[in-house]
Amino acid sequence: MKKVILIPDSFKGTLSSEDICSIMSKNVKKHFADCEVVSIPVADGGEGSVDCFLSAVGGEKITKTVKNPYFEDMESFYGTINGGETAVIEMASCAGLPLVEDRKDPKKTTTYGVGQLIMAAAQKGCKKIIVGLGGSSTNDGGCGAAAAVGVKFFNKQGEEFIPVGGTLKDIAKIDLSKRSDLIADIEIVTMCDIDNPMFGTKGAAYIFGPQKGADKDTVVELDNGLRNLCHVIKSDIGIDLEDVPGGGAAGAMGAGMIAFFDSKLQMGIETVLDTVNFDQVIQDADMIFTGEGKIDTQSLRGKVVIGVAKRAKKKNVPVTVIVGGADCGIDDAYEMGVTSIFTINRLPEDFAVSRTKSKENMEATMDNILRLMKSVNKNK
Amino acid sequence: MKKVILIPDSFKGTLSSEDICSIMSKNVKKHFADCEVVSIPVADGGEGSVDCFLSAVGGEKITKTVKNPYFEDMESFYGTINGGETAVIEMASCAGLPLVEDRKDPKKTTTYGVGQLIMAAAQKGCKKIIVGLGGSSTNDGGCGAAAAVGVKFFNKQGEEFIPVGGTLKDIAKIDLSKRSDLIADIEIVTMCDIDNPMFGTKGAAYIFGPQKGADKDTVVELDNGLRNLCHVIKSDIGIDLEDVPGGGAAGAMGAGMIAFFDSKLQMGIETVLDTVNFDQVIQDADMIFTGEGKIDTQSLRGKVVIGVAKRAKKKNVPVTVIVGGADCGIDDAYEMGVTSIFTINRLPEDFAVSRTKSKENMEATMDNILRLMKSVNKNK
Repeated sequence: MKKVILIPDSFKGTLSSEDICSIMSKNVKKHFADCEVVSIPVADGGEGSVDCFLSAVGGEKITKTVKNPYFEDMESFYGTINGGETAVIEMASCAGLPLVEDRKDPKKTTTYGVGQLIMAAAQKGCKKIIVGLGGSSTNDGGCGAAAAVGVKFFNKQGEEFIPVGGTLKDIAKIDLSKRSDLIADIEIVTMCDIDNPMFGTKGAAYIFGPQKGADKDTVVELDNGLRNLCHVIKSDIGIDLEDVPGGGAAGAMGAGMIAFFDSKLQMGIETVLDTVNFDQVIQDADMIFTGEGKIDTQSLRGKVVIGVAKRAKKKNVPVTVIVGGADCGIDDAYEMGVTSIFTINRLPEDFAVSRTKSKENMEATMDNILRLMKSVNKNK
Repeated sequence: MKKVILIPDSFKGTLSSEDICSIMSKNVKKHFADCEVVSIPVADGGEGSVDCFLSAVGGEKITKTVKNPYFEDMESFYGTINGGETAVIEMASCAGLPLVEDRKDPKKTTTYGVGQLIMAAAQKGCKKIIVGLGGSSTNDGGCGAAAAVGVKFFNKQGEEFIPVGGTLKDIAKIDLSKRSDLIADIEIVTMCDIDNPMFGTKGAAYIFGPQKGADKDTVVELDNGLRNLCHVIKSDIGIDLEDVPGGGAAGAMGAGMIAFFDSKLQMGIETVLDTVNFDQVIQDADMIFTGEGKIDTQSLRGKVVIGVAKRAKKKNVPVTVIVGGADCGIDDAYEMGVTSIFTINRLPEDFAVSRTKSKENMEATMDNILRLMKSVNKNK
């Protein structure tokens, strides 16, 4: 075996994609000392995404003082890759839930810092900016980020303000004409793996508000605010976001990225695959290892494993999948490019027991897959 | 892949070794249509052992009317293999626990029928007889079987009788001189995977008596009977069985086989490997699949998987092991000839949940191992 690609998703709650790459890589080197190993820990847009990209393709991590969710200065960061052509920003780095600690209040928090990071990357000359959604403390529909790049928001009295979750309902007018010209020429891609709409019972406030600190009344208030924002965006910008899947992602940051930044929403895995030039990297690979916490009929709808497999199939490269659980009814995966699926459960144990053993289990599973591969190689 | 060997142990309580062979074989044929498949379901000596041998090497199943555990006539059977040279007998076929139903009483039950089967095989001209222990309802130290081939037992009063568990204590004298001459020239091998001694707290009565229906007092009575039998065997036959491992197997049938039939006790797997000419069969094999319910530090002491692996190592044939559970601390297995170890747990579930899914889990695991092997084969 001369070249393998490692491109696992994280196992939510037990192993990060970087952990898994490291375990896999160590074992490949153990059994195939001369094998080239390309590690691409998959970023989903959430916390850690910048590091994933930097680890996959190399680049620079740039620190930058911007506003935190409470408009206070903090040191945040973004990454540049592809020789500085592309910037990678994770909104969690300055609008994340862990940053507010015991001050959770989605009526007050802002994404302003995210806009500042976008501006910083633009000023640095990046031609493309990838913005990862996820892990946010906000429900401001991206208005804070928009304000940071020059978008103006006015209330009925014609007074300018920076909307937060609790004041979205006051937006009467939006003016994009003062948005920084630097933004216009940049391709902005938003990584977004969920398809909740802006508002309604499946929307940002109802589904994600509670974990950000919203009680029942607040959820209703936030939801009404998002309805109003949607309404004003439609009348002033001319975009109807009501039914757009992913509009509700990250406190409706998904909607804001479309309306204020001309961004498209894209599955995280597709963004990663494009960014790392996956189709070219796998050209001469003997095996791709990928995986996710659980593969089931839902994963077949386009998460990491299937995203990887579809591209691998076109290049005729086999794909070994390692998962925490493999449900029945997943035979279509083989048609989609998956070669084989192994699970890490070394003993018949409930997840409550085995979750603490994920590292050892992953290790043992990878080790044994490679042992088998080596024996087959040798015998040919 | 041109030739594979399937030689799994049973997964106790969920899958027989024949079930596993059938699942494995079906999947090999699915992915490697032209591959020769040699199925050797492993017999452990217990119920089903004759069928395992017949399935592995072919042969004849011969029915024979003999005594059941209560000295009543029943139709039992034995197998002949290797062109009639070798007979295979499982003691469970006429002394088994299921045969006594609600009449469990190890003070009264006999192995007489087993002796009759041995005689029948001898009369048919077999040169070697394999006797499988296990699953017995008896605690007669093999005295019943011995009586059936002409061994005489006498009490203090010089009266001849056929000892059962409850009358072992009455044995005062054993006379082998009238044992059938047919037996003398036959090699008798006893399959025995346990190493309990004849008597004492680790002996036949204490460890296995209760499951055969013995209460506390009966256990003590049976144990004393076995002590007496051991004593008389020592004085009259000149063999000291007190510390012989396996002497306590199957109600001390292990001891009886040694004393009355000049038999050696042998691990079931070694008997199977010898009988099927394993070393020769695997000569041109590309892969051996074996497995057992659980592999742990104890299995490394010589059960099926390791027995198979040691022989395979000498011939340099890779061994893929499929198990229900793989404990940690088993790395020595790789030194002993195991190539790789896979578990069948497709989901993180407790055995209480997964035990009903063993068939599907085995199926999915085997399927995916073969998919991987095929992809590696193709790429070389």
